[in-house]
Amino acid sequence: MANIAPRSLEPLHQQVSAIIPTHWYNLHADLPEPVPPHLHPGTQQPVQAQDLAAIFPPHLIEQELNTTDRYIEIPQTVREIYSNWRPAPLIRAGNLERELKTKAHIYLKYEGVSPTGSHKPNSAVAQAYFNSLDGFHTLTTETGAGQWGASLSMACALLGMTAEVWQVRASYESKPYRQMQMRTYGGICHSSPSDKTAAGRAILEQDPDTPGSLGMAISEAVEAAATQEGVNYALGSVLNHVLLHQTVIGQEAMLQLEKAGEANADTIFACAGGGSNLAGLTFPFIGKNLREGTNTRIVACEPAACPSMTRGDYTYDHGDIAGLTPLLKMYSLGKDFVPDPIHAGGLRYHGMAPMVSHAYHQGLLEARAYPQEQTFADGLVVARTEGIIPAPESTHAVAGALDYIRSGEARDGEVIVIGLSGNGVLDLPAYGTALGNDGQ
Amino acid sequence: MANIAPRSLEPLHQQVSAIIPTHWYNLHADLPEPVPPHLHPGTQQPVQAQDLAAIFPPHLIEQELNTTDRYIEIPQTVREIYSNWRPAPLIRAGNLERELKTKAHIYLKYEGVSPTGSHKPNSAVAQAYFNSLDGFHTLTTETGAGQWGASLSMACALLGMTAEVWQVRASYESKPYRQMQMRTYGGICHSSPSDKTAAGRAILEQDPDTPGSLGMAISEAVEAAATQEGVNYALGSVLNHVLLHQTVIGQEAMLQLEKAGEANADTIFACAGGGSNLAGLTFPFIGKNLREGTNTRIVACEPAACPSMTRGDYTYDHGDIAGLTPLLKMYSLGKDFVPDPIHAGGLRYHGMAPMVSHAYHQGLLEARAYPQEQTFADGLVVARTEGIIPAPESTHAVAGALDYIRSGEARDGEVIVIGLSGNGVLDLPAYGTALGNDGQ
Repeated sequence: MANIAPRSLEPLHQQVSAIIPTHWYNLHADLPEPVPPHLHPGTQQPVQAQDLAAIFPPHLIEQELNTTDRYIEIPQTVREIYSNWRPAPLIRAGNLERELKTKAHIYLKYEGVSPTGSHKPNSAVAQAYFNSLDGFHTLTTETGAGQWGASLSMACALLGMTAEVWQVRASYESKPYRQMQMRTYGGICHSSPSDKTAAGRAILEQDPDTPGSLGMAISEAVEAAATQEGVNYALGSVLNHVLLHQTVIGQEAMLQLEKAGEANADTIFACAGGGSNLAGLTFPFIGKNLREGTNTRIVACEPAACPSMTRGDYTYDHGDIAGLTPLLKMYSLGKDFVPDPIHAGGLRYHGMAPMVSHAYHQGLLEARAYPQEQTFADGLVVARTEGIIPAPESTHAVAGALDYIRSGEARDGEVIVIGLSGNGVLDLPAYGTALGNDGQ
Repeated sequence: MANIAPRSLEPLHQQVSAIIPTHWYNLHADLPEPVPPHLHPGTQQPVQAQDLAAIFPPHLIEQELNTTDRYIEIPQTVREIYSNWRPAPLIRAGNLERELKTKAHIYLKYEGVSPTGSHKPNSAVAQAYFNSLDGFHTLTTETGAGQWGASLSMACALLGMTAEVWQVRASYESKPYRQMQMRTYGGICHSSPSDKTAAGRAILEQDPDTPGSLGMAISEAVEAAATQEGVNYALGSVLNHVLLHQTVIGQEAMLQLEKAGEANADTIFACAGGGSNLAGLTFPFIGKNLREGTNTRIVACEPAACPSMTRGDYTYDHGDIAGLTPLLKMYSLGKDFVPDPIHAGGLRYHGMAPMVSHAYHQGLLEARAYPQEQTFADGLVVARTEGIIPAPESTHAVAGALDYIRSGEARDGEVIVIGLSGNGVLDLPAYGTALGNDGQ
């Protein structure tokens, strides 16, 4: 196979559709109360830029700690890469409306058209870009089902870098397609726990047969980044700068609704795992509510098996199992909580992003939890009316919206937006299980 | 699972983007010489409408035999369904240009954003629509790797019908994801040869262990349609009406190039199996060449393992192994030709669509053949520069374009369009094989 040289970062003289936002939106600037800061795990004091410098580049640290600028410019190179799949479609789901016999207007904001099939590349590309700009050649990360690992591998390939991914062992063994996708992009993928890190070796020594966990994989990826020159770490959700990058979703949806002749979104349903898709779609609308007094209602839809907002405590907790990460103020089921092995791997995280947790605590959004059987049944309704097979994560947003409509809560002409964070093509076995043996 | 009621066909009051074509384009109307007609397999006389009525609905027969109307209107319901993924992106491949150090302008016309990941739904939706309009409730078809079967299953679900699919046994057993996709859309999928048809039983009696073939599966699906009330047959390529439906691709590309400030496409590379993607992308440009004297060069890229145009004879041949279909004048390797089991399943067909064959015979397009090793290596270059993993079929178009550019044939500013007929997400194991054990 041809070895592909690193790409230069000079801007392309290429037309970028005007509808792709020029800036990311920073909700901090509009919040009436500030988000409680991350704390240093040793000193328990608010983290400073230098505390993060071992694993993040200066530009991303600046974004992580930026609580004042409402808009942060998207570099032209990032927008050009976005333009390979953005603007992501906003689809008027007319067939679904007829199926539900509703006079509400249902729109699907669909991130499944990205090359890796989810919203994850929106942040992966931005993180790879800034790391590349600041001279780093490799990014380490953890991944569960593999959507984030594949997206970061793609982003690194496009920006002349390499991704090194620790994938939770259970998924590494049961989901070979995502690994192949990472390798196709030139990424390196290890089963976690691995013998590549001290953290991994310690876990293996204690429990050689462990299926692994996201918390373990984070510990390995952070260690690998902190101990090597030119190597940084990248996280796919939870942190402020990740949520920031995802706000292209909601800004686009706002413009697209306007083009479709709708004044505003009345109610938005979004799935909630670590919080990045939810924040990306809804923060621009929450900001508008705060600035302009609009009244878009936001419903976070989480799995009943991992209900961090609806059942968790709002407290300072670690992001990983080893306690290496800063303490984050978040709704959490506790860093040692191990959720049932549900199919929506992307929602199996014990905590919720601090910014989302804060918004929830302040009453700026609601949260509901749905069991997996219901979410797949409703995902199937979308598949058979609109053609799109939603990712297992996305079916939670679908379940939220369909429950709302079926209960009669939606009024005629109400504008409902469902966030479809990705497609379920690589999750078809989960649909097969949900369909059962009769096949229908 | 909820049983989903058939959808009504009343038009939605929904905005359909103006860039989605309003009509399909019929190349017949612009050809200087007429395409040799299909012949009845018994009488050897040109087929008449009534000869096709056992398996096709009146509207599609009219389209199949229409050699005079340049434009055929796309029904609003079909355009509304198209709008769930169309206009499909035309992507300026700036990273790829830099990688190749070329000053040509490379564009990717990318059909992989459709719900089933390829161009196939463009015709599946149209065929399901007209069958539904004419009162049929079930469509039978054959499928190899499964792209067409999944697309027809989706289209039937959206139009309140059922798809019954015979999938070549070797693929049925080795590619479970596509079957699960069909079932998710409510489709029924049989391994072919099956005990459901006389044709299948006869083959099984002779050779119980046969891996099956597309020719066998066609015989089964045609028999099932011809012998049941309310049931018709649908083909995914080769026939005139299928090619017609795909012309949305090329018409969109023409508009998108104009919006990108390009006067016209200079050279187009498209993969060629049965011919539907090639025709869909290029016929509008060939028509423009004929009408307006423009000079867009068309290069059909076929697999070296199944080179119907570059190595076949231009002759009347059957479309299936049992000889049930009309005789079609086409470049063919013979109906009994069994190609090597290459990964590009969609290109493993012994013949080439009569309209494409005629255009080739008339010198309106060129053809080249590429070996699989080369096409995957070049597909990988696209994956690592633009993020899109091309379907194995599409990598042939990529190989054609990259060969052309590397050989120095492309001039500065030349506008090159590569047809990416689909994404390779469900073909990742083929990339895995191409990458080899070193993983890079």
